[in-house]
Amino acid sequence: MRDDDKFTHSEEQLLHLQQLLDNADGTGLKGFFVELDVLDTARMLESFPAKTRDLLWEFVPSDLIGEVLAEVDETIRADYVEDLSLSDVQEIIKGLDAQEVAEVLDVADEAIKTSVYASLDEDIRAQVEVLHAYEEDVVGRYMDPETVNVKQGVSLEAVQRYIRIHHLLDDESQEIMITDKYKRLLGTLTLIDLIKQPQEAVVDDYMYEPFTLNDRMKVSDAAALLRSKELHFVPVIDSDGLLVGQLNPTDVLEITQDDADLTLKHMSGVSDEEEVFTPIMRSAKSRGVWLGINLLTAFLAAAVIGQFTAVLDQIVALAILMPVVASMGGIAGSQTLTVVIRGLALGQIAGNNKRWLYNKELWVGISNGLVWSLVVGAISQLWFGDILITLVITLAIFINMSVANMAGVLIPLVLKKLKIDPALSGAVVLTTVTDVIGFLSFLGLATLIILV
Amino acid sequence: MRDDDKFTHSEEQLLHLQQLLDNADGTGLKGFFVELDVLDTARMLESFPAKTRDLLWEFVPSDLIGEVLAEVDETIRADYVEDLSLSDVQEIIKGLDAQEVAEVLDVADEAIKTSVYASLDEDIRAQVEVLHAYEEDVVGRYMDPETVNVKQGVSLEAVQRYIRIHHLLDDESQEIMITDKYKRLLGTLTLIDLIKQPQEAVVDDYMYEPFTLNDRMKVSDAAALLRSKELHFVPVIDSDGLLVGQLNPTDVLEITQDDADLTLKHMSGVSDEEEVFTPIMRSAKSRGVWLGINLLTAFLAAAVIGQFTAVLDQIVALAILMPVVASMGGIAGSQTLTVVIRGLALGQIAGNNKRWLYNKELWVGISNGLVWSLVVGAISQLWFGDILITLVITLAIFINMSVANMAGVLIPLVLKKLKIDPALSGAVVLTTVTDVIGFLSFLGLATLIILV
Repeated sequence: MRDDDKFTHSEEQLLHLQQLLDNADGTGLKGFFVELDVLDTARMLESFPAKTRDLLWEFVPSDLIGEVLAEVDETIRADYVEDLSLSDVQEIIKGLDAQEVAEVLDVADEAIKTSVYASLDEDIRAQVEVLHAYEEDVVGRYMDPETVNVKQGVSLEAVQRYIRIHHLLDDESQEIMITDKYKRLLGTLTLIDLIKQPQEAVVDDYMYEPFTLNDRMKVSDAAALLRSKELHFVPVIDSDGLLVGQLNPTDVLEITQDDADLTLKHMSGVSDEEEVFTPIMRSAKSRGVWLGINLLTAFLAAAVIGQFTAVLDQIVALAILMPVVASMGGIAGSQTLTVVIRGLALGQIAGNNKRWLYNKELWVGISNGLVWSLVVGAISQLWFGDILITLVITLAIFINMSVANMAGVLIPLVLKKLKIDPALSGAVVLTTVTDVIGFLSFLGLATLIILV
Repeated sequence: MRDDDKFTHSEEQLLHLQQLLDNADGTGLKGFFVELDVLDTARMLESFPAKTRDLLWEFVPSDLIGEVLAEVDETIRADYVEDLSLSDVQEIIKGLDAQEVAEVLDVADEAIKTSVYASLDEDIRAQVEVLHAYEEDVVGRYMDPETVNVKQGVSLEAVQRYIRIHHLLDDESQEIMITDKYKRLLGTLTLIDLIKQPQEAVVDDYMYEPFTLNDRMKVSDAAALLRSKELHFVPVIDSDGLLVGQLNPTDVLEITQDDADLTLKHMSGVSDEEEVFTPIMRSAKSRGVWLGINLLTAFLAAAVIGQFTAVLDQIVALAILMPVVASMGGIAGSQTLTVVIRGLALGQIAGNNKRWLYNKELWVGISNGLVWSLVVGAISQLWFGDILITLVITLAIFINMSVANMAGVLIPLVLKKLKIDPALSGAVVLTTVTDVIGFLSFLGLATLIILV
């Protein structure tokens, strides 16, 4: 790809696919999907509305459908699997690994699920059962239950031979697990060491104690750890310290990127499962919830203004300046909120550095409040030429921006204590505070200074 | 870690470190940092304000300082390196790989940089020069210039022996590159295949054509590709198709997570380099820019309101309801904006699906606009008991929410065409639109319906 290329690779593919669709070029479409790998196929399917997508599925090579299904967004998977018969599902999951089978069965009817279970290879079934035994939001549900385990005292050469004879190591394996007879994890050996170290050495000489995750840890907590430790392969153990699976690089990517996505979506009032091509009614409904919550806060702000009709009635300039007060407080607060939410996600805020952070934000609020309240005051003086109005707006902006920054620290910390995700509701609570404080201080001061 | 644990791993470490600091326990602090790995050390240093951090650096084992420096946030690295002498820097970069040396030298004085360059091992210097030849925002700057290359026709057994004899494969290597005599990349072989396939086979039998990135591609474009393809190892080639380096899993993590972080920060008006413990004045200054831009848009909204003093003077209820109009439009628009920005980042929006997306958002806007304008109208009727005010607010909310959704699609698409990052300025432009349209339709309709 050249430096000045206008499109990313996926956009080029997408445009090509659209062209084939426009020309109703069946042979072209077939050829297009034969060339794509599983991931690109999934991304292409996600880039079309449901109706076109139904058409496109017809051109996906049938031996890839299972893997593609495991890869696409959950709602798309559910839409597709919904229409399948038992034999379709059985056909599709042939050759899938346990993680993929579990993903497909997750969205299938209970009846189909039970029948498919019964027809699975014993090996795969056991692994799928392990995965399905976990809640949806814990690490165990995301792990690969298949690991390559060896005992202590084995030579590297023997490990290599053992792998070749038994066809171990799938595409994703990264390390060899050294376990005792109870499957307690003693250490891991990287493939790099398995290759580069003297082959007569035993695994004990080069194994190391890896960072592990507990199978019942919440994925959101795991995401923070995986990110701050930059891990790309992690053994998963249960509460007894026994090895139950591993997180492969793609599992880690899934966990960390979903978490980052979720923060972004939650901060803008978008629900977890909404994607670009979520159907109209589904989007409207899921966003409606947030609009409703926002309406409550907006009417709270309105109620505050409603307390000051006397002064508003007399000085119309106040109504003109109201949005400036609310807006400056809102931005200042959300800047703080974003920084604090990121810090919390990375586990960097705990104990007495909260006080430092609080002081920092207070001073940032005060200094920016000072600068910008004077700027707003100057503009107001030029505009209205009324020193009392200027005094009122200057003070109100200063108060609201200082309070906004403190609220930007306190709100996520309090929400976290209440075990509410700060990214999910922090922005709404913050806006309520900055609107209420903004209008209260602005119109309250106006009543005191101008009206009285 | 147990299910009900209140703290993540890093928070526990942080609390422990704070305790040691409170007790001024020098021996404890030394012991604490000896136990930590490079990444944990970096995360701990990032969790304190500059003053405390300066103190903590004293307790970091001196042989780890170089690696820790390469790992911490760039501003922290710059603060530390600023005070170092030439000999300090030379001491610190001993044993670092080219990527780490480049990171440290990036923030050093020109004079120190030149002297250190001259004293580097020829091998490392050549690699550092390769990295420094790239712009800061392209893939080449993030890559590992060291790869393990073999020729076609070599047996797997010979590759393994070659690796052992020459001590190749550092901690991060994931695949073997098969190149011709010009260093053109012919294919790659995974370590997994190198181990599991018959050792007498030649690399040609198991090499595959990997997805590659161009060295001069922008990292933001690369991030989208790496995410949509779920890659964790990528060879990097130049415009002649010659192999110049590789992105290891940690490089990929850095690129994709920085990109996700950046989107989040930009959407809330926080600058790239701001972290939780960025000093007060630096935070205040970088946020000030955004506050200033926001002020312009707030005064634009104020100017719109200023056009309608006649009606505001007469009906104070309008001033009370103004924030409701602006707020509902703002939320509806930012929901759309977030979904579209994500779609753009993943390359899922191109060509004629823009029209579908636009229609979708229009209908979501219209249907949610309908529902919520009626709700707001009902509340307004109960509150003010004035059918004309109710009519005005209902229409205004409906118009603003419909327009907001269309703006949420159009603004990022237009910004992208203008080569402006939609995440960076999309939110500000959108707020301007929803405020202006909101106040214009609300007060304009009020003038037409009630006043005239």
